[in-house]
Amino acid sequence: MEGDKLMSTTGFAKTPEPPYYAVIFTSQRTDADRGYDHMAARMVELAATMPGFLGVESVRGADGLGITVSYWRSEDDIKHWKAHSEHQVAQQTGKQVWYADYALRVAKVERAYGK
Amino acid sequence: MEGDKLMSTTGFAKTPEPPYYAVIFTSQRTDADRGYDHMAARMVELAATMPGFLGVESVRGADGLGITVSYWRSEDDIKHWKAHSEHQVAQQTGKQVWYADYALRVAKVERAYGK
Repeated sequence: MEGDKLMSTTGFAKTPEPPYYAVIFTSQRTDADRGYDHMAARMVELAATMPGFLGVESVRGADGLGITVSYWRSEDDIKHWKAHSEHQVAQQTGKQVWYADYALRVAKVERAYGK
Repeated sequence: MEGDKLMSTTGFAKTPEPPYYAVIFTSQRTDADRGYDHMAARMVELAATMPGFLGVESVRGADGLGITVSYWRSEDDIKHWKAHSEHQVAQQTGKQVWYADYALRVAKVERAYGK
């Protein structure tokens, strides 16, 4: 799907030294498309314009299970993003149409390593 | 791939109320199989036997980008798992053979929601 390709090409997030925050969003897609691809690409685009946005990593498997981790400078930045009007519409449609199930966790990144 | 299917069927982790810890492992696979599927399935199986293991969620996309989030009771439990001899061998082979790149972040989950 177009949107999944777009989200996949987020690749690795170039985050600064910890501490910073991560929003871990795990979701199981329904079979309902109804604009999902467009919304997914738009939310990545929109999040990137928000204060405190540090990056995003996103993958969806062939079975419809997906994990998106977005990284933020502070908890306030996360609350600000959660409350964004266009994101609120996406959250509501997600609950009602796109996601059979999801889990969202807010976590403080304390340590980070790379290859 | 068999291993990816096994990892995909980890589905959602049934974690307790926060606080607890998350290890966010983002990776880009090489084209080298060399036992990857077997290792991936074995590491999920082995992690599940470790003290403080709370669950795991894992997805890999068609382009080889993957995100695995494992959940743990404490940082000590994560250190214990990192030091496990069989896991050490997997980490070394991962660096040398299976992963073109990866990022690992240790984070404290402070809040969690579901659908």
